[in-house]
Amino acid sequence: MLYFLSDYTEGAHPQVLARLNQTNLVSLPGYGEDELCAAAKDKIRAACELPGADVYFLTGGTQANLVVISALLRRWEGVLCAQTGHIAVHEAGAVEFTGHKVLALPSEDSKLSAQAVAAWMERFLADETHDHMVFPGMVYISQPTELGALYSKAELSALHETCRKYGLRLFIDGARLGYGLMSPACDLTLPELARLCDVFYIGGTKVGALCGEAVVFPAGDMPRQFATMAKQQGAMLAKGRLLGVQFDALFTDGLYWEISRHAIEQAMALKAAFVSRGYPLYADSPTNQQFVILTPEQFERLRRHAAFEVWDKLTDGRIAVRFVTSWSTTPEKIAALAELL
Amino acid sequence: MLYFLSDYTEGAHPQVLARLNQTNLVSLPGYGEDELCAAAKDKIRAACELPGADVYFLTGGTQANLVVISALLRRWEGVLCAQTGHIAVHEAGAVEFTGHKVLALPSEDSKLSAQAVAAWMERFLADETHDHMVFPGMVYISQPTELGALYSKAELSALHETCRKYGLRLFIDGARLGYGLMSPACDLTLPELARLCDVFYIGGTKVGALCGEAVVFPAGDMPRQFATMAKQQGAMLAKGRLLGVQFDALFTDGLYWEISRHAIEQAMALKAAFVSRGYPLYADSPTNQQFVILTPEQFERLRRHAAFEVWDKLTDGRIAVRFVTSWSTTPEKIAALAELL
Amino acid sequence: MLYFLSDYTEGAHPQVLARLNQTNLVSLPGYGEDELCAAAKDKIRAACELPGADVYFLTGGTQANLVVISALLRRWEGVLCAQTGHIAVHEAGAVEFTGHKVLALPSEDSKLSAQAVAAWMERFLADETHDHMVFPGMVYISQPTELGALYSKAELSALHETCRKYGLRLFIDGARLGYGLMSPACDLTLPELARLCDVFYIGGTKVGALCGEAVVFPAGDMPRQFATMAKQQGAMLAKGRLLGVQFDALFTDGLYWEISRHAIEQAMALKAAFVSRGYPLYADSPTNQQFVILTPEQFERLRRHAAFEVWDKLTDGRIAVRFVTSWSTTPEKIAALAELL
Amino acid sequence: MLYFLSDYTEGAHPQVLARLNQTNLVSLPGYGEDELCAAAKDKIRAACELPGADVYFLTGGTQANLVVISALLRRWEGVLCAQTGHIAVHEAGAVEFTGHKVLALPSEDSKLSAQAVAAWMERFLADETHDHMVFPGMVYISQPTELGALYSKAELSALHETCRKYGLRLFIDGARLGYGLMSPACDLTLPELARLCDVFYIGGTKVGALCGEAVVFPAGDMPRQFATMAKQQGAMLAKGRLLGVQFDALFTDGLYWEISRHAIEQAMALKAAFVSRGYPLYADSPTNQQFVILTPEQFERLRRHAAFEVWDKLTDGRIAVRFVTSWSTTPEKIAALAELL
Repeated sequence: MLYFLSDYTEGAHPQVLARLNQTNLVSLPGYGEDELCAAAKDKIRAACELPGADVYFLTGGTQANLVVISALLRRWEGVLCAQTGHIAVHEAGAVEFTGHKVLALPSEDSKLSAQAVAAWMERFLADETHDHMVFPGMVYISQPTELGALYSKAELSALHETCRKYGLRLFIDGARLGYGLMSPACDLTLPELARLCDVFYIGGTKVGALCGEAVVFPAGDMPRQFATMAKQQGAMLAKGRLLGVQFDALFTDGLYWEISRHAIEQAMALKAAFVSRGYPLYADSPTNQQFVILTPEQFERLRRHAAFEVWDKLTDGRIAVRFVTSWSTTPEKIAALAELL
Repeated sequence: MLYFLSDYTEGAHPQVLARLNQTNLVSLPGYGEDELCAAAKDKIRAACELPGADVYFLTGGTQANLVVISALLRRWEGVLCAQTGHIAVHEAGAVEFTGHKVLALPSEDSKLSAQAVAAWMERFLADETHDHMVFPGMVYISQPTELGALYSKAELSALHETCRKYGLRLFIDGARLGYGLMSPACDLTLPELARLCDVFYIGGTKVGALCGEAVVFPAGDMPRQFATMAKQQGAMLAKGRLLGVQFDALFTDGLYWEISRHAIEQAMALKAAFVSRGYPLYADSPTNQQFVILTPEQFERLRRHAAFEVWDKLTDGRIAVRFVTSWSTTPEKIAALAELL
Repeated sequence: MLYFLSDYTEGAHPQVLARLNQTNLVSLPGYGEDELCAAAKDKIRAACELPGADVYFLTGGTQANLVVISALLRRWEGVLCAQTGHIAVHEAGAVEFTGHKVLALPSEDSKLSAQAVAAWMERFLADETHDHMVFPGMVYISQPTELGALYSKAELSALHETCRKYGLRLFIDGARLGYGLMSPACDLTLPELARLCDVFYIGGTKVGALCGEAVVFPAGDMPRQFATMAKQQGAMLAKGRLLGVQFDALFTDGLYWEISRHAIEQAMALKAAFVSRGYPLYADSPTNQQFVILTPEQFERLRRHAAFEVWDKLTDGRIAVRFVTSWSTTPEKIAALAELL
Repeated sequence: MLYFLSDYTEGAHPQVLARLNQTNLVSLPGYGEDELCAAAKDKIRAACELPGADVYFLTGGTQANLVVISALLRRWEGVLCAQTGHIAVHEAGAVEFTGHKVLALPSEDSKLSAQAVAAWMERFLADETHDHMVFPGMVYISQPTELGALYSKAELSALHETCRKYGLRLFIDGARLGYGLMSPACDLTLPELARLCDVFYIGGTKVGALCGEAVVFPAGDMPRQFATMAKQQGAMLAKGRLLGVQFDALFTDGLYWEISRHAIEQAMALKAAFVSRGYPLYADSPTNQQFVILTPEQFERLRRHAAFEVWDKLTDGRIAVRFVTSWSTTPEKIAALAELL
């Protein structure tokens, strides 16, 4: 069975695992207040070119989203996002469980534009009854998006400016950040991205770690008692080192970028295999997630030999599916898939 | 100034107030566990032709919505409603504050159709990832809707059947229920409506009371410790009699229906005054809320003499406004308005 | 049946009801944004001698407690109170339902002392693990307390100073404030009390109104979007006038104080009736709640003719009970009770 | 520096890490729905001698507590525990953040007795106002307790019976379960414990894993959509295998018990080292946590060479401290500490 189900189907990148093995016997204090976590944070700050940034490690994407959003929003505020956004659809209502509304806006190509946000804000502000409504307090986007699309530097700058104008904080879900930044289609660097938002996270789980997301507050303005709030939500690990060690490995010698670049290359080879054989794309993604449309017959045949996710069922009976690559995707695996097509 | 701002711009209907005056000195236990509340509940059961129904009094519409929804939903469930639904827009995120997502569906004419619910449910059930999503547990509708529209008996029956089929509870917000049921355009009676849902409320605040909504569980299956949960949300009055006495008056000698019928008649006269003078309607409402489109000049002129609500700003610069009638709207007031037009 | 069950067993004081009758037909905007509410707020500011105070009307005590506490506390904070405090025992977990812990401290005589708070704070601050604990953010007390006890000016001043020292806000539940301030045993005036806390409320429900509590922020620092948060908790009345009109009546010509003084006088007569006949007191209350210890025989006999609340069951089989007076308690009623003893 | 700070100061037991290394490249579905998690669950069922039990993996103790408690309690219920219980003190109000009150009872020796629970329940049921109070829905205990104490089979049986009698579910926090069950002072086996409660968890984080707790529902009655609720709280790992693999290793060839037994032996040697030198114990613990009282001089001297936690500051100036052993505590480390004393 060829696994393309997701970018979390294997364990950790060997160098990440090696670092866990090496540091296993070191005695350290708990809760992430150890020197290995400190070292990892420093490497992340260096990669962001932001020595004053605050960094906090959490275990997964949904957890990072709910901890950050609920820590930053005020009681009467909600979070704006694209209708296809992960927090709006696939997190079992995690944000609402913390008491806040997700204000989902129609999106184009799974992205939220500065114009859409500005138009929504103008309508909100003009509404004489808005004291009876949920106030928007934050904009949430993903880079890349659920459909593998990318915000350009111009788009992100416009969004950032719009957020400034309306007093909204801008939060970037970077569960697959490496796959976004390493895409040839991306014109943003990590330091640039970090300067165009209020908070973001660097995904580890989907980029070579066993678990772990590094939340970054570029301006060094992590909310007071952020760790206490994480604890309150069950998000603080006793052996916080587990997260620090992995990020230390990922941000040593550019491993994070190497993993990301490798996965993108495999994804492009995979896309070429489909396109060259005439398979239509559901979305033309420049990142590690590829979306292809299959006929029911193609679907049935492929499913016998490969694992992938059903993404959408089209009204004409065809099926949109997702193939995902990662650090563990080999050229041999792509070749084997190509043979199946 | 001619007041058409809402149906809560004056105090209570004189007969409601009279009953408060009459019973003022009677000594009674607190928290609604008194004989006046019991009498009012009996009258409501009789009006519903449901001797086994459970009835509980709350003070207002948003409160009724959040108390009922959060009492009935399970932890992982959300509530389906029309995108224009009150809980989705104008309750400051009250449902989300209790931890539950409002799943807003596109609506036609501010109503939610059985087909729309069924189609949504089929998509949800077919989605292989739905364990990571908010489960729909309830359908919320208003009769009449935010835009004064009415569900017909056929529409409500279809919705009720669809809810049964998919295991969804059906909740009807009846903040303006009298104005719905007394509309000549309505083919539903109270007993019929009560049999086509799992829980609904009979609005008092907007139909002649100072405050108060009567929540009805037609099948007599009010959730266990419902009063405790209301208390937990600050929704239990020490002098619960205040609500019982008012509903006792409203459901004596058909006062509730008389108030409603009167307001509908005034609303129809008001609509005629606009239509006969060529004012276009924003929505053709058969109930006590009327929606008219004004030019900026008309708007400015009218606003000097009448109070009404801005509903929507059209792209061509015209303004949709809302005029509302109630028990206190006199034919003289309508005539004075007509003169202004 | 002689009713001494509580101070909410009858309707409104006749002058309060009269004002509701008088203003019933005045057309006003909703949600408490009307001139009658504005007038009532001004009268309350005058009574507090604080022209810059913010005032907001809510319907009941539990509601006021949960709205104020959840609006003022930060995400990681809880509220300190006496173990016997209403929020700790008799509000069905309303504060916890908003996500905050009630930190109950042992109390003496149902009061919380400045020393107890200071000692608790010192232990908290000295605890090296306190980032894993709930931070205290507020002190909640009642004046008078659940057992009718009063804080003296010296006690309240000490508490206020302690709160300042440790960065705690001080919140006074004044559901029975009139009965506290009008007690001959009380050395505090309303203006003094208002200057010794951050927020308090003036109870209406138990002091002559049908419903209503006036929340006062003496420094004029009501949290931003307080009304939106109240709406979010179902605590905003459409006919907000209902609360304003009643407080307008209560704060016209000293009615609030007159009602309170009357109830205290009746309570003292009631206490004397018990004490002179040798009934032991469970607590020696100088306010409108009286606590007496009855033998089972006395209890059974009295219960046939009078309504009162069981407060505590003593280990020796005797029963502590509570008798409460209000504006509606007449000397005749006290005399009739005395005869029963 | 000799580390005795906690049982989470090193990484994973070498055999646990080895298993992570071995399985690293196996391709598996996400979210714990893989064959390695299934195998681990089977081994846990076998260890419990309960083939029908439900098992679910979570990452840490606070997370397990809040996910389990909030999934099992009904809206109006709270959880009873000892005043010293972890959920009452050291989880930053995590249970309250999910909306539920922690009802803390005075405890003896950090344990909750069946009698204390029964007495509390009788008082609650006899209280005529209990519909206005938080209903107890669950009893939470730890085995061993915060102070290393153990419930005997007789004590746990009595508690279990009392819970049955009053309709309370019994939940055992087993963050250190191995250290409890392997203590020579313990007369309970895992299968026996599993039959004397409704839900418990087997701690991995503190017993040799990097992270992970195995929640067990002995009767196979895990709440519906438990995984959805865990997701909603950010508690579901994408690479769920991380937890399954570790528990697979821990429950292969009795590793979990071997780790536990080793730590207990070291703890007893550590206790002997203190006691034989005349150091008084703060609590006489038969498990892997040891509590000793130090003079300020002893404290200062020891702190230079050893890491341990300050537990309590005694009024006479002395300091109670905690030393903890684990799989990684060697006899050499104990000997080195003994030398320091």
